[in-house]
Amino acid sequence: MDPRSPFDELIGTEWISDDPDDARVRVEVREELCQPMGLVHGGLFSSLVESICSRANYLAVAEEGKVAMGQSHSISFLRPITEGFVEVRARARHRGRSTWVWDAEVLDSEGRLCAIAQFNVAVRPAPQRG
Amino acid sequence: MDPRSPFDELIGTEWISDDPDDARVRVEVREELCQPMGLVHGGLFSSLVESICSRANYLAVAEEGKVAMGQSHSISFLRPITEGFVEVRARARHRGRSTWVWDAEVLDSEGRLCAIAQFNVAVRPAPQRG
Amino acid sequence: MDPRSPFDELIGTEWISDDPDDARVRVEVREELCQPMGLVHGGLFSSLVESICSRANYLAVAEEGKVAMGQSHSISFLRPITEGFVEVRARARHRGRSTWVWDAEVLDSEGRLCAIAQFNVAVRPAPQRG
Amino acid sequence: MDPRSPFDELIGTEWISDDPDDARVRVEVREELCQPMGLVHGGLFSSLVESICSRANYLAVAEEGKVAMGQSHSISFLRPITEGFVEVRARARHRGRSTWVWDAEVLDSEGRLCAIAQFNVAVRPAPQRG
Repeated sequence: MDPRSPFDELIGTEWISDDPDDARVRVEVREELCQPMGLVHGGLFSSLVESICSRANYLAVAEEGKVAMGQSHSISFLRPITEGFVEVRARARHRGRSTWVWDAEVLDSEGRLCAIAQFNVAVRPAPQRG
Repeated sequence: MDPRSPFDELIGTEWISDDPDDARVRVEVREELCQPMGLVHGGLFSSLVESICSRANYLAVAEEGKVAMGQSHSISFLRPITEGFVEVRARARHRGRSTWVWDAEVLDSEGRLCAIAQFNVAVRPAPQRG
Repeated sequence: MDPRSPFDELIGTEWISDDPDDARVRVEVREELCQPMGLVHGGLFSSLVESICSRANYLAVAEEGKVAMGQSHSISFLRPITEGFVEVRARARHRGRSTWVWDAEVLDSEGRLCAIAQFNVAVRPAPQRG
Repeated sequence: MDPRSPFDELIGTEWISDDPDDARVRVEVREELCQPMGLVHGGLFSSLVESICSRANYLAVAEEGKVAMGQSHSISFLRPITEGFVEVRARARHRGRSTWVWDAEVLDSEGRLCAIAQFNVAVRPAPQRG
């Protein structure tokens, strides 16, 4: 796997921790991440959750010759963010042979809880190369 | 509301229809929308679903002096997209006084179903300006 | 598999169709299915969705020596039910080798939409017996 | 509100704590709560989550003349339960004027995590009686 994630470069993801017990990413709020009312777009929250969980999951299973693919994602939005940064903290609550389940919190720069999420990941043998 | 959505400009959303019975957006696949394995990032699917549902919902309730705020979102990923375009088709399944509920499909350029989603929106009186 | 489902006997599930394109169950509303305000309990909606999707999925993959296990479930409640019957209509939107994804509608006896749901099922080889 | 919940009497819910920081219920596993393979039915997990969150939410807002109605629910199943008891522990992560958001864990009698859930509740003025 090419470790570069072009979409994360586009949105500006800063990788902080890949530890499955406390995986973290952060993005500085800037205008181009906002929806029309000036709030950070909910899709940015979802994208960050998926980025960090997928990455931490991949890194944890790559040694066993496996890949991780997002299967489903649920997120509840609690509080908007308009400035500072957006941080996601995620934890793998289940680490099965074929499925990992993560929960995640989205926080603002004051540490206030802005969203909670669950992300389910399928773990599968890596495709063979010829 | 400023009708511009900076995040949608960043990702390249093309607005096709705001009809709550058949709301649609589309994005051309390009490298910067992909995750490390070369698939369109799942967060892009989520972002498009939230963009079109929020916009169509806002346009439908703005006349009554109301705004629409995403409350929760669930998406299941069925099939990756690597080229062509990503299209979201959404439909408001419930149009209550304080809540709208949408379902949405994510399709590729061949019309294949790639994800299904549910998006719940809170409808509230617009904040007063002083 | 013993075809009897004791929990469905407890709640009174009537099996109508196991067709993965239009799977259906129904339950007559009775007081013991209600929560304190006299509305059918949301958990009854969830239970019916899981029962019919799991059953129809199992029946579709059993010939291949596989079993079906619910992995995740999202439901949005649109309208309460107080009398008549509760009907669930479900459809398999994705039928992969290791995952099936269903969507479902909960209707009342007037045909009004009362909830929408997504249910994800893991499909796995049946455990071997010794 | 009649404090009796007939559906909880049917399934056998034991109310342990209504504290929104640590709300708890428990049910003894018995055959009639199981699906065909002898595992506790997933719908029972969902029902217990909705029962305790709705009840604790109602008790917390009733003094203000408000009622609580479940809006959406997402649950991921991690591990089956076949004996002992099923316990749900829930916590209100957001307590807004019009929305509360809960997360919940489903545990078996060994304290193992068997499911995680998010439950969103609409808080509204109680209907007036004439």
